[in-house]
Amino acid sequence: MSQPTYSRTRPCRVNEVPRWDFEADVCIVGFGAAGASAAIEAARAGAKVLLFEVSAAHGGTSALSGGEIYMGGHGGTPIQRSAGFHDDTEDFYRYLLMAGGPNADQAKCRAYADGCAEHYQWLVAQGLQYKNSFIKERIVEPLTDDCLLWSGSEEAYPFNLGAKPCPRGHTPQWMGMGGGKYLMDVLAGQVIKAGVQVQYEARAVSLIAESDNQVRGIVVRIDGIDRYARARGGVILCAGGFIMNRDMVKRHAPMLLRAQYPLGTVDDGSGVQLGQSVGGAAINMSEGFVTLPWYPPERLIRGIFINERGQRFINEDCYHGRVSHHCLQQGGNRIYVLLDKNSYAEPDFGAHFKIGIGATGETWAEVERELDLPLGALTSTVALYNQHAERSEDPLYHKASKWVQPLLEPPFVALDCRIDHALYTTFTMGGLDTAVSGEVLDESRRCLPGLYAAGRSSCGLPRWGEGYSSGLSLADATYFGRQAGIASARRAAQLR
Amino acid sequence: MSQPTYSRTRPCRVNEVPRWDFEADVCIVGFGAAGASAAIEAARAGAKVLLFEVSAAHGGTSALSGGEIYMGGHGGTPIQRSAGFHDDTEDFYRYLLMAGGPNADQAKCRAYADGCAEHYQWLVAQGLQYKNSFIKERIVEPLTDDCLLWSGSEEAYPFNLGAKPCPRGHTPQWMGMGGGKYLMDVLAGQVIKAGVQVQYEARAVSLIAESDNQVRGIVVRIDGIDRYARARGGVILCAGGFIMNRDMVKRHAPMLLRAQYPLGTVDDGSGVQLGQSVGGAAINMSEGFVTLPWYPPERLIRGIFINERGQRFINEDCYHGRVSHHCLQQGGNRIYVLLDKNSYAEPDFGAHFKIGIGATGETWAEVERELDLPLGALTSTVALYNQHAERSEDPLYHKASKWVQPLLEPPFVALDCRIDHALYTTFTMGGLDTAVSGEVLDESRRCLPGLYAAGRSSCGLPRWGEGYSSGLSLADATYFGRQAGIASARRAAQLR
Repeated sequence: MSQPTYSRTRPCRVNEVPRWDFEADVCIVGFGAAGASAAIEAARAGAKVLLFEVSAAHGGTSALSGGEIYMGGHGGTPIQRSAGFHDDTEDFYRYLLMAGGPNADQAKCRAYADGCAEHYQWLVAQGLQYKNSFIKERIVEPLTDDCLLWSGSEEAYPFNLGAKPCPRGHTPQWMGMGGGKYLMDVLAGQVIKAGVQVQYEARAVSLIAESDNQVRGIVVRIDGIDRYARARGGVILCAGGFIMNRDMVKRHAPMLLRAQYPLGTVDDGSGVQLGQSVGGAAINMSEGFVTLPWYPPERLIRGIFINERGQRFINEDCYHGRVSHHCLQQGGNRIYVLLDKNSYAEPDFGAHFKIGIGATGETWAEVERELDLPLGALTSTVALYNQHAERSEDPLYHKASKWVQPLLEPPFVALDCRIDHALYTTFTMGGLDTAVSGEVLDESRRCLPGLYAAGRSSCGLPRWGEGYSSGLSLADATYFGRQAGIASARRAAQLR
Repeated sequence: MSQPTYSRTRPCRVNEVPRWDFEADVCIVGFGAAGASAAIEAARAGAKVLLFEVSAAHGGTSALSGGEIYMGGHGGTPIQRSAGFHDDTEDFYRYLLMAGGPNADQAKCRAYADGCAEHYQWLVAQGLQYKNSFIKERIVEPLTDDCLLWSGSEEAYPFNLGAKPCPRGHTPQWMGMGGGKYLMDVLAGQVIKAGVQVQYEARAVSLIAESDNQVRGIVVRIDGIDRYARARGGVILCAGGFIMNRDMVKRHAPMLLRAQYPLGTVDDGSGVQLGQSVGGAAINMSEGFVTLPWYPPERLIRGIFINERGQRFINEDCYHGRVSHHCLQQGGNRIYVLLDKNSYAEPDFGAHFKIGIGATGETWAEVERELDLPLGALTSTVALYNQHAERSEDPLYHKASKWVQPLLEPPFVALDCRIDHALYTTFTMGGLDTAVSGEVLDESRRCLPGLYAAGRSSCGLPRWGEGYSSGLSLADATYFGRQAGIASARRAAQLR
């Protein structure tokens, strides 16, 4: 055979396959949360499952996360209920829809809202432990082993108008940050137990497809040699997003290049590209998550954000990622949080994410001068805010009254959150369009037989930077990873 | 043969072709400006050219335009020079780069800047006439047969910092609006003269490709019957954008759904989808042009735009499309232009585009109340603007001093530009990634042999709503349409 012409972006045709090195019912690319969940379900459904991971160990980008999963509905998970919350499935559904933004996937929101109680049980059955506890304060991630937290914009305008607020971030019982690694260790244990064959240090090179693009397997490079894996039921792409592929980011989501802290491991876009090579449609490619964890402590939420024209632009009680997304939308690099004696605190993660002090003063005019803002720009914004804050109102942005108080007590401080200085964290949300079953869809939304995707290689529940909530990615990866595992195993059985 | 399984999103394989109904060197889909320009050049290079058009006549969306083409550099076109402007090629290039935004295609900007003098001559040689005249006032489109106008943000911040401003919109000599139809009549005449065979009412159904996705031809449906056209050199997709395919807009550019006046004809996304079916990468799919032509008359530019929080958000002397793009970025639907006695005028196109009067008053406080804005929101914005405008300065948004004067003279007026009421016009800018030669690229930017695209089926010079200037689309369509015609004819000759 001559030099292979196939690649990530050009499928290997079945007639180009020199031999089958592996044979399986289901081949999975990527051993993060999506791949693990898919593997467990496919294997338990009786499929012979082969999992290829480019690294030397399981985990992927899921292991870098806090392990938080967004769950609710059906009256509430046991944790929500015992914290005194009732979470109606319809409120949960409506929140998921709002979080998904103008291109929310109704079918996926419906499926997850309806299936979440079962999913919670499934996660627990895998061995994941949740402490029966609730953290009232607004935080980013627990430093303890506590579970339930407000992890989105549930209580904030305009989300609070569309669905009854309820905390839905469920963090596994793991002391300190880094619950994602624990989550992945638990899932990986089940993958092995289910009899899945894992091949590490195997790079997905190309899909193997018929001339009509029906997917038959995958070419993986192991020790520099191309190996041909037949997948009777299908291939599931769970290879992450594309934040580490800077060229793809530039072409599809250039705004995210401004955020200097890409969060990923092997998120090189290969999952998306492999799917596209057989006609899979990539959607919402310009969307991404961006955050600067400017709180905790939550008293900082009493401050107000301004851009380099001294203007406010958001209700500061939104989820930190929503606030940060809006920071990036402002023209210019300069972003400040204005605080007074009653609201100032040192941000818990300020040193790590490079949030410094931009200016201080005994008057707001002094702060304005020190920041070299146009005369009256900052002071008129503060004056207008204070005027309404006297009555705990924020008619411009509708920050909830509990956070609204006039900024009157010196000393005054401007926290410096410059885009080109502070470490805004980012990952991509665009990916392959998929059905609820995980089947990859083409541009006319027809299924591509034999191809599935889950996690950030697909475009799932999280697809809108303005609406993201912590825990949506792992919710999406685990739940729809499972669906892809089930569907591909079923297809293998039917074709057997 | 059984029921065909090919479609826009799934290529017909060569071995599925029952017969060749047509044979040509180059097949072109779409008879707008891109298709016409490609056809002329391919035919003149000696290729046998077949042009398929879904409508019963030439024109496409190009014929709906004003016919304006963005040109400059090389010291200036004859029209620019005689109006007293010197347009350096590097200024032209830098402006094109800025207009393209964070994902500008440097190679295309370079090629067009360098090739524009020749392109001007080519257009004139086709029979297009330009009157040697310049319109000083800021307008949208000439109502006369005049030629040169300011058609972008050249003089406005921040574009004026990056390139020496020069007017570059060239409108053909045609009395009144509708120069696009005249342009298309001229080009269509040359297409016929060059011996191109045109097949009207022929719908492109599917590309014909080898199993390695090399493109060999196209399936077109004529009178309900699938016809198979072989293209020895290549197929050129010039089938427009996707603004009329509301499902595609929803999935890729949902923001554009807010603009209620989609501007297109057969822009059903088929060009993009056909390219994707063989692995072509679609980029910048979320970007689009949006405009509400709120001026002329230009005195309106002395007013200030506010959102529903009473805040300014743009320097109002930008191109109307840039201002309108920012209108859509504001939270909420309410957008107003604040004017006083010295700046108010009835917008020329106000009635057509549904720009009404939102409020009037003898004081700004009265206007604020009438608009039911939060107390102090509008008045503090006007006060801050006026304070600096007294010295003809706009330190917040850098509107050029010639447009800056305090809004002090009653009666005061708020023009109502509500997004959900006024007719914001929109079309898509995302499309197939192509090389300068028009060759379609896959996600790793490798050429797909035998496939070309131009015009809005591709992603060319116009690719950023914030940076668009009138005339960029036709510049892109005609210039890169020509390149695709030349490249495909050359390929046909090499393969002959």
